[in-house]
Amino acid sequence: MKLVTILLEGTQRVGVLTDRGIAVLPQTYGADAGALIQAGLSVAQIEQLLGQATVVPDDDTIQYLPPVGRPPKIICVGLNYADHTKESPYEQPDYPTLFFRVATSLVGHGGPIVRPLASDTLDFEGELAVVLGKGGKHIARDSALEHVFGYSVFNDGSVREYQFKSPQWTVGKNFDSTGAFGPVLVTADELPPGAAGLLLQTRLNGQIVQSASTSDMLYDVASLIAITSEAITLEPGDVIVAGTPSGIGWARNPKLIMRDGDVCEVSIEGIGTLRNRVEDEVRA
Amino acid sequence: MKLVTILLEGTQRVGVLTDRGIAVLPQTYGADAGALIQAGLSVAQIEQLLGQATVVPDDDTIQYLPPVGRPPKIICVGLNYADHTKESPYEQPDYPTLFFRVATSLVGHGGPIVRPLASDTLDFEGELAVVLGKGGKHIARDSALEHVFGYSVFNDGSVREYQFKSPQWTVGKNFDSTGAFGPVLVTADELPPGAAGLLLQTRLNGQIVQSASTSDMLYDVASLIAITSEAITLEPGDVIVAGTPSGIGWARNPKLIMRDGDVCEVSIEGIGTLRNRVEDEVRA
Repeated sequence: MKLVTILLEGTQRVGVLTDRGIAVLPQTYGADAGALIQAGLSVAQIEQLLGQATVVPDDDTIQYLPPVGRPPKIICVGLNYADHTKESPYEQPDYPTLFFRVATSLVGHGGPIVRPLASDTLDFEGELAVVLGKGGKHIARDSALEHVFGYSVFNDGSVREYQFKSPQWTVGKNFDSTGAFGPVLVTADELPPGAAGLLLQTRLNGQIVQSASTSDMLYDVASLIAITSEAITLEPGDVIVAGTPSGIGWARNPKLIMRDGDVCEVSIEGIGTLRNRVEDEVRA
Repeated sequence: MKLVTILLEGTQRVGVLTDRGIAVLPQTYGADAGALIQAGLSVAQIEQLLGQATVVPDDDTIQYLPPVGRPPKIICVGLNYADHTKESPYEQPDYPTLFFRVATSLVGHGGPIVRPLASDTLDFEGELAVVLGKGGKHIARDSALEHVFGYSVFNDGSVREYQFKSPQWTVGKNFDSTGAFGPVLVTADELPPGAAGLLLQTRLNGQIVQSASTSDMLYDVASLIAITSEAITLEPGDVIVAGTPSGIGWARNPKLIMRDGDVCEVSIEGIGTLRNRVEDEVRA
């Protein structure tokens, strides 16, 4: 099942992609795929709601929102592909490099990735997003994938100048409307375990700039869940953004940065294509 | 006004400290001081609710919770006191060093700061916490303090081994129940502008281990709000944890780490004393 969160006639709604279009679910459980997850609904229970759905065409008028708009936590992973670490200023650590994003940094499929007034050093990072259905602490690696609700696509838009202004990447990773997320949340049953072995590609204005297999991740999805949960209680609706492969613009010579009007796409096999236009922030 | 969030007969409630005890407010606006802030209530409007309050004694049976339990964002500031940067492995950056905490890491006054199974390197960091009443983007420094609802006390408990396992401090700063917050949220009208010039002291088992003035912060409260909001939209209920002065245990020779049974207190003049006992995590 492919879930979407959309804005329909000004109201946020949850839908399911079908052959006939988007089946818009009743608002019983809230207006966001995250609300369904937090209500504890299974895929089978969501399927039952389809009987009460209204189908709308999946056309250009649909405004996509992040599948989960207010995750309790957005846990991002840095340096999770060996080739990307080699193009970075860092040595490969023997522990996952985690940082958080906040909800104000998210933007849906089709929405603008905003190049801020503060800096013109906006870069792309195509990534796999993992949405948890079940929380927990000290989750064993062997059973970790039982905690996954589904997978999506993420563009971890990074303002490089701000990422490196201090020892912590936080600000460069959290400018408003730089973290593109979507379009769909594919339930885990439709993908290989841990979403392993899927082709991930990023295209800037149609040119492939990143291409890798999700199996190249140094810490796979199960390991990320197990290791993180040794320290931090995971919760339903939490999102893990699993890291980017090599090819980022900042590591190129000359540097490739995104500009107003550019179109950036991230595709993951079996999930879909997240497409966003880059727009300069407008001075208020 | 001094607001508290407490657990009363198993229910989370908001109260106001009075001479007669804790005036427990009606549940109209939610069960947490953050809910009152997000509902947009002014100090005067909260005072009006006092007419409907029930007073309970402020005694040992009261279980304090973090004043704001689920802030939209918890923005922490590293390296914000020059003396602390000198005892750290870092050079002083010319931009604030920000990192996030997540809500699962919080614990209230009187609750346990938990030393995790994963590591015995748990350290204290006494800090000023700023709770925003009004959000915004590109907030001018001159008007930034208008966005502050009030101030509280924070102990940014840090698991040093995990803080330095990768280039990002995230995990070491986010173990469950390591970020103590409270006991009270003092409204801004009761303190000097920006909570400047207040004595901040941390005591471990009664011994003073940190002592500084909040005026020693390199980025004051107004600057932190202005600079952060150049990148990130701030929201009502957001918390800024403003950094720790020198004296941390990890920088001492020999290192001073917190152990099961230790009592750590952080006091800020005009706000109050946050007191927590350290407890080892229990293996499930």
